[in-house]
Amino acid sequence: MIGFRARLGFLLPPGNPTIEYEMIAMAPPGVSLHFNRMVAHGMTGSLDGQTERNTSMVAHLDESIEMLALVKPDIIVIAHTATSYDLGADEEAALLARLAKASGVQVTTAFASVAAALERLGIKRVALGAPYSAETTKKGRAHLEANGFTVVHHDNLADVVNIYDTTAEDAYRLARSVDRPDAQAVFLSGTGMPTVSVLDMLETDLQKPVLSSNSAMMWLALRACGVNQPVAGFGRLLTLD
Amino acid sequence: MIGFRARLGFLLPPGNPTIEYEMIAMAPPGVSLHFNRMVAHGMTGSLDGQTERNTSMVAHLDESIEMLALVKPDIIVIAHTATSYDLGADEEAALLARLAKASGVQVTTAFASVAAALERLGIKRVALGAPYSAETTKKGRAHLEANGFTVVHHDNLADVVNIYDTTAEDAYRLARSVDRPDAQAVFLSGTGMPTVSVLDMLETDLQKPVLSSNSAMMWLALRACGVNQPVAGFGRLLTLD
Amino acid sequence: MIGFRARLGFLLPPGNPTIEYEMIAMAPPGVSLHFNRMVAHGMTGSLDGQTERNTSMVAHLDESIEMLALVKPDIIVIAHTATSYDLGADEEAALLARLAKASGVQVTTAFASVAAALERLGIKRVALGAPYSAETTKKGRAHLEANGFTVVHHDNLADVVNIYDTTAEDAYRLARSVDRPDAQAVFLSGTGMPTVSVLDMLETDLQKPVLSSNSAMMWLALRACGVNQPVAGFGRLLTLD
Amino acid sequence: MIGFRARLGFLLPPGNPTIEYEMIAMAPPGVSLHFNRMVAHGMTGSLDGQTERNTSMVAHLDESIEMLALVKPDIIVIAHTATSYDLGADEEAALLARLAKASGVQVTTAFASVAAALERLGIKRVALGAPYSAETTKKGRAHLEANGFTVVHHDNLADVVNIYDTTAEDAYRLARSVDRPDAQAVFLSGTGMPTVSVLDMLETDLQKPVLSSNSAMMWLALRACGVNQPVAGFGRLLTLD
Amino acid sequence: MIGFRARLGFLLPPGNPTIEYEMIAMAPPGVSLHFNRMVAHGMTGSLDGQTERNTSMVAHLDESIEMLALVKPDIIVIAHTATSYDLGADEEAALLARLAKASGVQVTTAFASVAAALERLGIKRVALGAPYSAETTKKGRAHLEANGFTVVHHDNLADVVNIYDTTAEDAYRLARSVDRPDAQAVFLSGTGMPTVSVLDMLETDLQKPVLSSNSAMMWLALRACGVNQPVAGFGRLLTLD
Amino acid sequence: MIGFRARLGFLLPPGNPTIEYEMIAMAPPGVSLHFNRMVAHGMTGSLDGQTERNTSMVAHLDESIEMLALVKPDIIVIAHTATSYDLGADEEAALLARLAKASGVQVTTAFASVAAALERLGIKRVALGAPYSAETTKKGRAHLEANGFTVVHHDNLADVVNIYDTTAEDAYRLARSVDRPDAQAVFLSGTGMPTVSVLDMLETDLQKPVLSSNSAMMWLALRACGVNQPVAGFGRLLTLD
Amino acid sequence: MIGFRARLGFLLPPGNPTIEYEMIAMAPPGVSLHFNRMVAHGMTGSLDGQTERNTSMVAHLDESIEMLALVKPDIIVIAHTATSYDLGADEEAALLARLAKASGVQVTTAFASVAAALERLGIKRVALGAPYSAETTKKGRAHLEANGFTVVHHDNLADVVNIYDTTAEDAYRLARSVDRPDAQAVFLSGTGMPTVSVLDMLETDLQKPVLSSNSAMMWLALRACGVNQPVAGFGRLLTLD
Amino acid sequence: MIGFRARLGFLLPPGNPTIEYEMIAMAPPGVSLHFNRMVAHGMTGSLDGQTERNTSMVAHLDESIEMLALVKPDIIVIAHTATSYDLGADEEAALLARLAKASGVQVTTAFASVAAALERLGIKRVALGAPYSAETTKKGRAHLEANGFTVVHHDNLADVVNIYDTTAEDAYRLARSVDRPDAQAVFLSGTGMPTVSVLDMLETDLQKPVLSSNSAMMWLALRACGVNQPVAGFGRLLTLD
Repeated sequence: MIGFRARLGFLLPPGNPTIEYEMIAMAPPGVSLHFNRMVAHGMTGSLDGQTERNTSMVAHLDESIEMLALVKPDIIVIAHTATSYDLGADEEAALLARLAKASGVQVTTAFASVAAALERLGIKRVALGAPYSAETTKKGRAHLEANGFTVVHHDNLADVVNIYDTTAEDAYRLARSVDRPDAQAVFLSGTGMPTVSVLDMLETDLQKPVLSSNSAMMWLALRACGVNQPVAGFGRLLTLD
Repeated sequence: MIGFRARLGFLLPPGNPTIEYEMIAMAPPGVSLHFNRMVAHGMTGSLDGQTERNTSMVAHLDESIEMLALVKPDIIVIAHTATSYDLGADEEAALLARLAKASGVQVTTAFASVAAALERLGIKRVALGAPYSAETTKKGRAHLEANGFTVVHHDNLADVVNIYDTTAEDAYRLARSVDRPDAQAVFLSGTGMPTVSVLDMLETDLQKPVLSSNSAMMWLALRACGVNQPVAGFGRLLTLD
Repeated sequence: MIGFRARLGFLLPPGNPTIEYEMIAMAPPGVSLHFNRMVAHGMTGSLDGQTERNTSMVAHLDESIEMLALVKPDIIVIAHTATSYDLGADEEAALLARLAKASGVQVTTAFASVAAALERLGIKRVALGAPYSAETTKKGRAHLEANGFTVVHHDNLADVVNIYDTTAEDAYRLARSVDRPDAQAVFLSGTGMPTVSVLDMLETDLQKPVLSSNSAMMWLALRACGVNQPVAGFGRLLTLD
Repeated sequence: MIGFRARLGFLLPPGNPTIEYEMIAMAPPGVSLHFNRMVAHGMTGSLDGQTERNTSMVAHLDESIEMLALVKPDIIVIAHTATSYDLGADEEAALLARLAKASGVQVTTAFASVAAALERLGIKRVALGAPYSAETTKKGRAHLEANGFTVVHHDNLADVVNIYDTTAEDAYRLARSVDRPDAQAVFLSGTGMPTVSVLDMLETDLQKPVLSSNSAMMWLALRACGVNQPVAGFGRLLTLD
Repeated sequence: MIGFRARLGFLLPPGNPTIEYEMIAMAPPGVSLHFNRMVAHGMTGSLDGQTERNTSMVAHLDESIEMLALVKPDIIVIAHTATSYDLGADEEAALLARLAKASGVQVTTAFASVAAALERLGIKRVALGAPYSAETTKKGRAHLEANGFTVVHHDNLADVVNIYDTTAEDAYRLARSVDRPDAQAVFLSGTGMPTVSVLDMLETDLQKPVLSSNSAMMWLALRACGVNQPVAGFGRLLTLD
Repeated sequence: MIGFRARLGFLLPPGNPTIEYEMIAMAPPGVSLHFNRMVAHGMTGSLDGQTERNTSMVAHLDESIEMLALVKPDIIVIAHTATSYDLGADEEAALLARLAKASGVQVTTAFASVAAALERLGIKRVALGAPYSAETTKKGRAHLEANGFTVVHHDNLADVVNIYDTTAEDAYRLARSVDRPDAQAVFLSGTGMPTVSVLDMLETDLQKPVLSSNSAMMWLALRACGVNQPVAGFGRLLTLD
Repeated sequence: MIGFRARLGFLLPPGNPTIEYEMIAMAPPGVSLHFNRMVAHGMTGSLDGQTERNTSMVAHLDESIEMLALVKPDIIVIAHTATSYDLGADEEAALLARLAKASGVQVTTAFASVAAALERLGIKRVALGAPYSAETTKKGRAHLEANGFTVVHHDNLADVVNIYDTTAEDAYRLARSVDRPDAQAVFLSGTGMPTVSVLDMLETDLQKPVLSSNSAMMWLALRACGVNQPVAGFGRLLTLD
Repeated sequence: MIGFRARLGFLLPPGNPTIEYEMIAMAPPGVSLHFNRMVAHGMTGSLDGQTERNTSMVAHLDESIEMLALVKPDIIVIAHTATSYDLGADEEAALLARLAKASGVQVTTAFASVAAALERLGIKRVALGAPYSAETTKKGRAHLEANGFTVVHHDNLADVVNIYDTTAEDAYRLARSVDRPDAQAVFLSGTGMPTVSVLDMLETDLQKPVLSSNSAMMWLALRACGVNQPVAGFGRLLTLD
């Protein structure tokens, strides 16, 4: 049986090429991956029009989840960090509860994964890097602080035209540049920027935990389904139960 | 850049857990995979209600393709063999042309992949196995013959409750049982039955080419995008340009 | 000399295909495996007629052991868990003593292996899963408790027609479902259900020892012959002396 | 399903430690092995009393096969070469036919495997080595010639007390010593002498095919069940279909 | 002795980060690499000011070679393709002769390597891709044709700000786009664009030889020093003597 | 981007064949190496004329660094130990400050790397071996002591004609011979003698840290650029942050 | 330079085939092996005539060592355990001193190696197994006790015709049979019986150190030459400095 | 049994460190190596006094062989090339015949191995390199020509003080320098110069067979004992039967 250990479902921003690629790299034996695209229009990945696209994706979530639930996943992850920044904590909680009830499957989000991961690592003070516009990055900072974390420094990647054209090497250099001595960890936000292949290297060089939206999503999805497999090569978070 | 060599897009029957799993197993370096689920309702994978579900999936193809096209794939494959059996050759050709024009991406189907693959292998006489109902399997046979192939023998897998619960071991035994000396190849129809992990073993034991809907889709998708990488381990088809 | 380190003999229920397969997977270098089939008739592996078959196997044990002893094994294991459930502790002890005396070889059983393994692991409270009928599973629970263990939860695999058709994936899901927080370990009973390939994965996911009749038999057989080789890949029991 | 590709059954002389060991070494993926011991008494493996033991094993064949057939093998091999020497061709053929009919499984013998293997290799002139007494070795030679092969030279291993104490190194040196320039192949008779680990080395050094009862049994068993997997490391026979 | 098989010397444009990286990747055992930077000023790698920089590098060649010759290389390669385009064939030949005489070491250039490599491959008709300005790329085309090759198509990489920021993925896509059916090979000019890691993949996909300035320099340097080691992984050129 | 993790620049004595070879062996993933030769004349590597050559290299440092800085290294290392012995601590410090200011890149030396490495290892008492003349070796000893280290024993390699002809086996035997029980570590001076391939073996045999100019340069260059990758195989220094 | 780390010389009983084979298996990188045969006549390896042969070997030691010393070994080991039993401690010490003085090389014996190894392991109480006659084995026991060790049990291998025909499997079974709970280690005497390939397995099974004349000789030879390389696979002794 | 496939005996010049090292590198599985040192005095390996030492070694051959024969080798090789040059063909043949008769073992020499190897390779015209004095090298040339080979060029290694200090890198460069276009093969004479690790590299670079005294001795010894194992990594000779 495919995915006899667990089936993980991911809802993707439609133009995002990164999540499938990085989840495939991290999935342990016995765990299968299933994907559905959310509904949005226009030039996805660009810094313009993000709010409209976020709104559209939220508006169609019920139908997006209904189709994905047919493959009988053990969990569904809404793989978009900025959605949480827009919705705020209360509205997001209500939405997830409604969706889980309708589909009969537990539903979570990228940001909820990140918050749980930071707690698991015992992190209070974090440095934040993101490929967003300066404005969206600031929203991300505010959302982290609203969730009880101190952001000791934040910055966004320079010269981004389209998030989906950024590389893991960009992510490496962004993390190096946003880190500060008083940060206990570095968090790279955004599911569209490739990050997971450089997390181990970053932890070696910065000598502290480095996590991203994508590594946190995989970690939470596995652990929430009772799969406690340590996965090597993607930062220490994924080696923890 | 993710998928710098090629980005392959697949449209899936919503309850099908097999395609993602098998495409991930076969994709060569530099090629990325992107998925979207088609729209259907009810107990997907069961032998009942297949026709209604096929109709629904075809009816929503435009919107399914629009979302998938946003990730800029080099090709989109409609990953459902039985759809072609229902539509017939002419209607399918018209549909594909319209979809390609609307999305700006080349679009093909599982069955078109199979027909091209049989031609590439120089096969005229084939044995057919499928996890469908006897009735649908007969339609499959008829469609093959309408496309100019001789089906020397066909049979469907016994005792199937839900196609998505069949295993690669079932596929192995089905292929062994449907093969006949005058068949030049064995074809296992249906994207929901796992097959690709046993194709090499079957070719060793039957001493002729063995292909499936899933191995044919990957082969055609790669070759149509100019990726001529031989992929070992999944039957001789994928070792050919 | 074949088996210069130790020769292990196993007496099998005649229709059981699993024991040879799993013992071969676990045997360390220098240890050879030798098999003989016990005498039983009818539809072996089915849930019906188990008691009659058990009776037949016990009745012919002397001749079964005589032939196996000719290969000069260092130990003989009667590889059938349910036999012990039927005989009870006293009758089994008397039987083993008589057989050892007659053959000149130490003789043990699957259940004796399990009891010794639980003690070695320091386990008092266990969760029990089995592919038997509900009735036989209950006998298994009673026998464990008669041996001084607390069974915090037990269940049998649903929808079994023939035990010999169950898979290791079934065993994985059964273990996940019978585990309870107050269980110190999970025990999968029955030598006919494949288990050993998923024990490591189960221990990773459940974060406690998971053992089966088959892993316990190999462990006891090796250790009773003075072979203290840790064997990796089949649960922590086999890594212990 | 264990042995989904094929299940091979072997009937063993009860004291023989070699067959299980060598079959395990040669079995390809997807093929499972199942064993039952024949009925004989006394000092098995010694050169004395062989005829009485052979008679006993033949007399109990029906019951030995009945138990082994319960595991549903695709073939049963009577793994004793000298039995065929005693029975002669006609009596053996009649026996096999009766046994196959009774058990519903195809039944063959070690010697029948050897004869088929020599034919497959296109061998007419063979050198023969065996761990038997000089007398039994001569019977082996006669049986080969009765089957249409020319034995250009034969010899038996010196100083054998018990066949089951011989080693693969003995087999290597025996093959080197019995080979003659006009032999097209060397055949090592007897399922109790370990041979399969030195067959490749012998073929390299003698520059002709070298086969043994055990390599021939595995080859015939696989090919008769439709498994055409080339198996490397045990002589060129097992690399042929 | 370091470089006992051969010592290869390379003169680099001072800002070029690519040559050292790619030569290190390709050097076979026993061959050592030695580098010296040529003299040029300004924003190296940018498309502006290339001619002035080329003039400066040529003007200082004597002193650049004198220092590199002290490490006793078996050959010195002037690792800049565009220099040859500016000098023309006659002036380049005179220059190389003078430098070899002064230093006592054979001296060659990137373009001379390319021309020799195309001859070795038996290529007459080539497609050309380069990261240069359109103007410099045209010069490259003219120089190839002046050397007797037909350039069936040429193009330069779009949107280049600095050659030294281009990637091997850019080179892959450039080669795919400039190839034409009547080209017998694709040549990627310019030592600053990383190419060697994608040459094998390009040859697989385009089914013809693909070479670059860097692969040609390593090939010629090795072969001119009598090192005929086939080097795998960088296009078929380096597998030829 | 080549060297996205760090780009390391090295200035070499022009005839030195060793530094490039050993740096290539030690560089971790993501780190690129860039070289330029300093200006000196005559029979480099011989024990005669060292002082004149050192003077020449220092005199031309500005122009040597200017060209190397064009490749945008994160650090530049002046890879010559004896230069520091000649200049003395104060003059060297002034020189480095001036060069760093002029080039905009941090600049360090081989000896500064050694001093930092000894401190990192917590070493006070060291044994010194070198391929220099006895006189230069004594200068090396004096410079170490001027920097606060105690040199418990020193010696130079016998029978050296040209440093660049010495081997790593010479270095092994030199280190074995200069070691004394009261030395906490052994230091092998000189960037021209190959050492890094025997440092692990020496540490195993001498059971104390063994470092060389070359291992110290790589260690300092990486750590000064924020690359904390442990590099195995070249002594324990490179496994430390 | 061959053996740049150390050159080890061994003097062998002329008919002994085992020492070269086992030393080759254990030698670490950079260490070379050199052999010379001592002078003895008759049926070497047999239990008869051992004393005469020992006398002959001792009588010719000077010339045997002179030839071996020409290869400039760092140590010479007289690789015969029973020699020490015959000579006694005082006579052996005098002999070794004289030989070392004459040859200019340190000289030791198999037994001296064993005594040093037992001390290194901190062993006082040992079980002894040997392939000798019962009488020689008793001498071995006496010599061990004369050196301050308690022999808790001893036995010789049964049915030995020629020591040089014994196998490592014999050694395994001998060690298993002579071990006693109060022994801290098992020592297998005799350089002619193969032992080193089973020492790790024995330590695993007996859960205490197991050493042999051959493992002790290699350990002492390495350590006496300053080579502290841990060698894995031959018992824990060789992993110690 | 050690060396069950073959036992090879080598008689060594006493100071030669190379033969044992290189034979160990080349020996295939199942083949054991046994060594004895010949009798010679003085500064072995130096170019002076070679003739006296050769005479001494020949004078003591009977006793050297007697001791080596006790280990029951299948062949004995006199591993000294220059001996044959001194003796001449007739005297050598008589000597070998007498020694074989006395010892009961076939006896051969380094030069006889070379002559047989050249014939096996079909070589008539050879280039010769050696580490000897010019005079001895000329004798080598004469001996080759007396055996029917044409020596198209010969040279000896420059600046040799002691043959036993030469390296495989010296051998590589010697072979490169003595090769001529009309030579069909290069032969490196002398068992004391390490050669076998560079033969493959030389064949790659020179594109013709390259053999040495040591590779020829191993080839002949194996083939004369009926071991036809191709041995990879040491020139094509050892891949031939």
